[in-house]
Amino acid sequence: MNNSRPSELPEFARLDLRRRERRGAPETIYCASKTAAQIVEIYRRFHAAGEDAFGTRATPEQAVALQTVFPEAQYDATSRVLLLRGRTEVKTPVGQVAVCCGGTSDLPVAEEAAQTAEFLGSRVTRFYDVGIACLDRVLGCIDEIRQANAIVAVAGMEGALPSVVAGLVAVPVVAVPTSVGYGASFQGVAPLLTMLNSCAEGIAVVNIDNGYGAGYLANQINQLAISN
Amino acid sequence: MNNSRPSELPEFARLDLRRRERRGAPETIYCASKTAAQIVEIYRRFHAAGEDAFGTRATPEQAVALQTVFPEAQYDATSRVLLLRGRTEVKTPVGQVAVCCGGTSDLPVAEEAAQTAEFLGSRVTRFYDVGIACLDRVLGCIDEIRQANAIVAVAGMEGALPSVVAGLVAVPVVAVPTSVGYGASFQGVAPLLTMLNSCAEGIAVVNIDNGYGAGYLANQINQLAISN
Amino acid sequence: MNNSRPSELPEFARLDLRRRERRGAPETIYCASKTAAQIVEIYRRFHAAGEDAFGTRATPEQAVALQTVFPEAQYDATSRVLLLRGRTEVKTPVGQVAVCCGGTSDLPVAEEAAQTAEFLGSRVTRFYDVGIACLDRVLGCIDEIRQANAIVAVAGMEGALPSVVAGLVAVPVVAVPTSVGYGASFQGVAPLLTMLNSCAEGIAVVNIDNGYGAGYLANQINQLAISN
Amino acid sequence: MNNSRPSELPEFARLDLRRRERRGAPETIYCASKTAAQIVEIYRRFHAAGEDAFGTRATPEQAVALQTVFPEAQYDATSRVLLLRGRTEVKTPVGQVAVCCGGTSDLPVAEEAAQTAEFLGSRVTRFYDVGIACLDRVLGCIDEIRQANAIVAVAGMEGALPSVVAGLVAVPVVAVPTSVGYGASFQGVAPLLTMLNSCAEGIAVVNIDNGYGAGYLANQINQLAISN
Amino acid sequence: MNNSRPSELPEFARLDLRRRERRGAPETIYCASKTAAQIVEIYRRFHAAGEDAFGTRATPEQAVALQTVFPEAQYDATSRVLLLRGRTEVKTPVGQVAVCCGGTSDLPVAEEAAQTAEFLGSRVTRFYDVGIACLDRVLGCIDEIRQANAIVAVAGMEGALPSVVAGLVAVPVVAVPTSVGYGASFQGVAPLLTMLNSCAEGIAVVNIDNGYGAGYLANQINQLAISN
Amino acid sequence: MNNSRPSELPEFARLDLRRRERRGAPETIYCASKTAAQIVEIYRRFHAAGEDAFGTRATPEQAVALQTVFPEAQYDATSRVLLLRGRTEVKTPVGQVAVCCGGTSDLPVAEEAAQTAEFLGSRVTRFYDVGIACLDRVLGCIDEIRQANAIVAVAGMEGALPSVVAGLVAVPVVAVPTSVGYGASFQGVAPLLTMLNSCAEGIAVVNIDNGYGAGYLANQINQLAISN
Amino acid sequence: MNNSRPSELPEFARLDLRRRERRGAPETIYCASKTAAQIVEIYRRFHAAGEDAFGTRATPEQAVALQTVFPEAQYDATSRVLLLRGRTEVKTPVGQVAVCCGGTSDLPVAEEAAQTAEFLGSRVTRFYDVGIACLDRVLGCIDEIRQANAIVAVAGMEGALPSVVAGLVAVPVVAVPTSVGYGASFQGVAPLLTMLNSCAEGIAVVNIDNGYGAGYLANQINQLAISN
Amino acid sequence: MNNSRPSELPEFARLDLRRRERRGAPETIYCASKTAAQIVEIYRRFHAAGEDAFGTRATPEQAVALQTVFPEAQYDATSRVLLLRGRTEVKTPVGQVAVCCGGTSDLPVAEEAAQTAEFLGSRVTRFYDVGIACLDRVLGCIDEIRQANAIVAVAGMEGALPSVVAGLVAVPVVAVPTSVGYGASFQGVAPLLTMLNSCAEGIAVVNIDNGYGAGYLANQINQLAISN
Repeated sequence: MNNSRPSELPEFARLDLRRRERRGAPETIYCASKTAAQIVEIYRRFHAAGEDAFGTRATPEQAVALQTVFPEAQYDATSRVLLLRGRTEVKTPVGQVAVCCGGTSDLPVAEEAAQTAEFLGSRVTRFYDVGIACLDRVLGCIDEIRQANAIVAVAGMEGALPSVVAGLVAVPVVAVPTSVGYGASFQGVAPLLTMLNSCAEGIAVVNIDNGYGAGYLANQINQLAISN
Repeated sequence: MNNSRPSELPEFARLDLRRRERRGAPETIYCASKTAAQIVEIYRRFHAAGEDAFGTRATPEQAVALQTVFPEAQYDATSRVLLLRGRTEVKTPVGQVAVCCGGTSDLPVAEEAAQTAEFLGSRVTRFYDVGIACLDRVLGCIDEIRQANAIVAVAGMEGALPSVVAGLVAVPVVAVPTSVGYGASFQGVAPLLTMLNSCAEGIAVVNIDNGYGAGYLANQINQLAISN
Repeated sequence: MNNSRPSELPEFARLDLRRRERRGAPETIYCASKTAAQIVEIYRRFHAAGEDAFGTRATPEQAVALQTVFPEAQYDATSRVLLLRGRTEVKTPVGQVAVCCGGTSDLPVAEEAAQTAEFLGSRVTRFYDVGIACLDRVLGCIDEIRQANAIVAVAGMEGALPSVVAGLVAVPVVAVPTSVGYGASFQGVAPLLTMLNSCAEGIAVVNIDNGYGAGYLANQINQLAISN
Repeated sequence: MNNSRPSELPEFARLDLRRRERRGAPETIYCASKTAAQIVEIYRRFHAAGEDAFGTRATPEQAVALQTVFPEAQYDATSRVLLLRGRTEVKTPVGQVAVCCGGTSDLPVAEEAAQTAEFLGSRVTRFYDVGIACLDRVLGCIDEIRQANAIVAVAGMEGALPSVVAGLVAVPVVAVPTSVGYGASFQGVAPLLTMLNSCAEGIAVVNIDNGYGAGYLANQINQLAISN
Repeated sequence: MNNSRPSELPEFARLDLRRRERRGAPETIYCASKTAAQIVEIYRRFHAAGEDAFGTRATPEQAVALQTVFPEAQYDATSRVLLLRGRTEVKTPVGQVAVCCGGTSDLPVAEEAAQTAEFLGSRVTRFYDVGIACLDRVLGCIDEIRQANAIVAVAGMEGALPSVVAGLVAVPVVAVPTSVGYGASFQGVAPLLTMLNSCAEGIAVVNIDNGYGAGYLANQINQLAISN
Repeated sequence: MNNSRPSELPEFARLDLRRRERRGAPETIYCASKTAAQIVEIYRRFHAAGEDAFGTRATPEQAVALQTVFPEAQYDATSRVLLLRGRTEVKTPVGQVAVCCGGTSDLPVAEEAAQTAEFLGSRVTRFYDVGIACLDRVLGCIDEIRQANAIVAVAGMEGALPSVVAGLVAVPVVAVPTSVGYGASFQGVAPLLTMLNSCAEGIAVVNIDNGYGAGYLANQINQLAISN
Repeated sequence: MNNSRPSELPEFARLDLRRRERRGAPETIYCASKTAAQIVEIYRRFHAAGEDAFGTRATPEQAVALQTVFPEAQYDATSRVLLLRGRTEVKTPVGQVAVCCGGTSDLPVAEEAAQTAEFLGSRVTRFYDVGIACLDRVLGCIDEIRQANAIVAVAGMEGALPSVVAGLVAVPVVAVPTSVGYGASFQGVAPLLTMLNSCAEGIAVVNIDNGYGAGYLANQINQLAISN
Repeated sequence: MNNSRPSELPEFARLDLRRRERRGAPETIYCASKTAAQIVEIYRRFHAAGEDAFGTRATPEQAVALQTVFPEAQYDATSRVLLLRGRTEVKTPVGQVAVCCGGTSDLPVAEEAAQTAEFLGSRVTRFYDVGIACLDRVLGCIDEIRQANAIVAVAGMEGALPSVVAGLVAVPVVAVPTSVGYGASFQGVAPLLTMLNSCAEGIAVVNIDNGYGAGYLANQINQLAISN
């Protein structure tokens, strides 16, 4: 039997420290299903390299473990983002990304998207609880939403918010289905299918509850729009 | 082996001639997966009993076979409704049922709903191609739609039309998902799930492509509304 | 990183206080996946506006939190309905809605339907544990059920109760599949499919376990039936 | 490359001529997805061994091919059963198996069940078009159905017939879902799930459209019941 | 709001005390998703009527609650059967039912089947851990298994045991898929599909983990076999 | 019965002629499941309004019908794009969109994407048959691909091409799963899931076979990138 | 619009002529969903490079088109393999691969596996129609099967053959589910799940109907076994 | 009721002590869903027979229970392997198996594979956290990986690692999907489908999270490769 426990070995994680150069953004850390010890070790390596360590899906236990070692680490309980700043300077947010969501229960995913885009350098405006059961809510702020270079629309249950928004604007809408709902929502499959089948063009779908991916994509588009 | 072919036996179909009395409407005929010979025989029995024979999902071949025997039979190629009037008198349509659909491709289902409600005695108004990719279409006729006692909303692809309509009216919306679409619409599963998960209340869902059931239900509600 | 926690911001929920006027009933509160603090704040806003606050899927913890602030709030552990009366006067129940269910395990959903219809102004009669494994149960009370303007039929496992009832009455049957069962019931998918495929007309299907939606729809139909 | 075409080789099919002894019934032939040449060859081998060759899911083309060689072969277009008697003597049917079905469209499957049970030696009574949308149909013949030692109940769409029947009798009910229906019937999945989740005990489920398996099982039970 | 809690009302459960006469066996109690108070009340009513109360899927907590009131109630932790004898006399087991299972993890379901058949009056022989990864196990006891009038075969994971057994015997095999397994077993869907698609005839499938239904069906067949 | 056939009525389709102004691109025509007569009429209306009529999923029959009336209409059999130029002037393509695909069988979808982006004003470069079974293919042209402002990656079967590409570039990758494959590809579900679950960031997923949506989205991003 | 049709362009397919060196076997051609013109062109390029062109899933039409240009091309209608020899010399088959299948209907997949392994240099022995409904068939040839270095086991319906075989041998079994069956076989999903969940170790699963992949894998193992 | 609890009976588990002879490896123990008492008893019987007892999916509680009786039992918390050596001598590892995984979260499955192959006598090299979001990681060690006779590639989320590896090597790749991920990964279904549909040949798929099966299969291939 294997005497050296794998989690004690140095090779359990290989950092991609050249990602910023290749992809324009540093590697991030998906905290779910990692042990607290693994989390601390991974953040430590980023920190030693002077790089920002930005993690998603962090549990309060992981945050406490990290803050024991790095008291300056920041944890947001709603978005579950766990951030340890490196020696990079914080960028001034540029351009504009709008993040909308259908209901209060979608906040964790919407905030994950918003904070990701902010971390990557975008200015973010938030439009929450604008679900389509009351169209006036979204119509009432559509002119503000139109100011953005990219829009993130987060919705659970039926997931029709991205379609309604996309039908009213000219820029891409990143659609994030959430697992909010019950019964035939099938943990987010229903809004996922809604978004994939939207009759409005310009919708970019990401995985269920993937606020991080949506924020990343919206920031990419926003950066392209201001880069010229 | 069985020498007498079942389809030659009298018992292959048992008419429910007391249904009008028990349920308020005559039995109807689901023509799909029946042979032309079976169709003709079933219509013949209804006719012999003086009852209207109203069939859905009839193929052109079934219609031709029936019209060979009963030239007065009416067939509508869009809705696939096949009707042979009995000795009952045609009722004056009463009340109001609104039938909306998202796109041109939803017409066969929408018309099945509309013609069913008309056959059962409802006055029907039609609002077609009012899909939500262009909200102005449905908002432009919402005041007319509000006149109805019951609304049928037919949509394929993402299927968000019933939610948008239900959020704007006070009466029940019968939602019909259609199999229009491709890929992740899964032959109508996507709009079915959208409708079941709607965040707007007052939505009654029926099976995929079930225009008949929607028209039946809308007529029931409409008749209740005017019956006092 | 975002210093202001979203749940501290005023915009995490936008009340739709004009819904009663537009839709004939006030907005209700889906308590699941909201924090206790969010619940208390939302009820407080409804109360401040003089509106009834009617919530579903409330946990005992949410109820206790609310009753700490508003001791007059009512919580029903079976239906999980959490109600805080505003300054509106309680309506005298009118018409009749029948709520049937297949087995004892379906009670939470059936009661959610019944209490919703009652809250919205309908008189409700209950017919529980009338599953079709013993047809005599439902046949024994069918004459009473026929008195209603709308029927809610709740069933898990095979979900055939709505079909049997609809085949015997002339008014709409709102069918609610429940997640009661195991194995191939797939958390309510089996009865959902049964109800969508019913060979009896006049069945309006709602989401799995959606007693609230069924009560809302049945009340709409009942109110239409007595409104003339 | 392989010069000898597999279908010309003797080993493409291995007859199980000792199955009658081991299992109480001869091997049968599943004709679907076999070529006409393979069908003729397989029947020829059974015949040469003096055994009855009983095939299911035979196409008219396969029947014609066989009848060209063996004009005495019998083909029933409804059940798609293709039979070539061997030198065994035809058994007098014994006991009783009841075969019920919900609608006219279920006839092919019901007849496959009935003719299989007859071929294996059971006396069969048929009760067709007794779907539960009109309960009087099945209640009207339940006393006759109760005479059987085993009951086959065939139904598509919602598939509730076996539950209703099983709730009224004391013997096993073999439930056969059919692919009749559309939309959310998912080619027979809906009635399959209904039957697996039945709240009535004593239901033995077989595969979608598997009339053959149902007839086989019902005959086994019937033979056991009369064997003492 | 409803002041009378439903669980305090007499009508939350309607006993089917005439089931023994109609169906040949008393009603049984599905304990899952019932409160301990409901369980005690239901057993009390059966007991008051002199009837045996036989419940499945009982939790240890439910058993303790019942035994507090009726110390003579028997609980088996493996099968989760909870039995309170009435004034009926215990029947001498007759005939023979064989219960086989693939692995140790299938024991709870196998025992539910065995104890159900025993309760209903069948003599039961058990053949456990005879999964097909080692064919010698099942071949080694096949002659004993062949003595039974009906066979219950319980298997999780790939679920091939019923096919192998049915291919070797002449009586019906009741196949019970279990939720034992992981990954692509999908909580029992994999063995369920295996059993529905078996190439061996004479297989009666019941729901995933439905040991009770299997024992009931096997007893029905066994009783028929000895009834002449 | 309805005497006026719906397809003869003017309201079967409502053009959204203000879409160019609201969304930056004209409405397009989804030709699938429309009759040839409907197609001709819709194109006629666009043409009368001076607008370009760009349709996707057109069949050869629809193309022939349109070209009978408008001989200048252009049809591409690979992409199934059917175009009738209006009085707008053809834009000079700007920026750069890269369209890659995994295999020859993905060409129809890739061309639909490419031609859509071209129609909307983007310059398009094509990289076909660069599937990952031979990494050298995609690595060999990655420097060229990096020139684009947006990348469309089309793949069936396992659908890993977008992940590999996204891991190597800094701009958004629009991922299009195709229904190419068999068995467990489930008509494109397998690559769809692959793309939704990609561990590489910056992937925007669209519906299975939705080349049109991908081209639209890529053009939106490309136009944003050059608009400053 | 694109004037140059893509299928006329040289880049629609990029041959991987270095695959033999990198992977030990030449690239093969998946003929499904390619046009006849594309097929001829691809084979032509292989031939020009002196390489064998081995294609699977070829239709008779594709074969005829190829044989018009290259009369020496070989087509096997059962396996649908289309082969055009290059200037490589045919290898003497070495080692041993056993190919088993459950029933006659599985022959096309089994032959695709067998001919692939033969093309790649393995000696193949065939054991067809050895399904487990009659265990004697497979037990009767198990000693011969045990001679192989790798075994391919092909089965549809319940798919238990690989489990039974793997339980009796010491070498890897490549399991191929086929789409043979109906109803709950779901086009091969049932046997696929059976094989993935096998309780016998040493089973390597490939895609539904993927005889090619199975033959490739079995040859790889066979070559390793004889390579020392 | 059954007085003798099944778990007290000797027959609850039947050891297959001749498996080493028949299959080349001893029987192993799947610890999940067994009680601690059953685990101890099973290990005790293996030990009494002098055989190694190798169990997978053991919980810490099961390990503690076993170590109370057999303090020499070894438990690895990452792989959940629980090993009690018998009187067999530990084999010197031979040949080479490479185990790769995509990310840190896949470690438990990768280690289960590695330790299984080691237990069965293979020398194992590990390549962890080489997911394809950064191709350099896997390309950087591909020459080392190529030294192996068999490769295990473990990946969750999109699961493309096996395809990338298989495209670069000449030996079989055993692909293990893991349940790591969220949303549309569906507990490992997404990578399972990716692996089944791989366009690279030579991929042997096992069940989700089935590290044990992968290690077993890789060892079989490795042993064959060195056995000549």
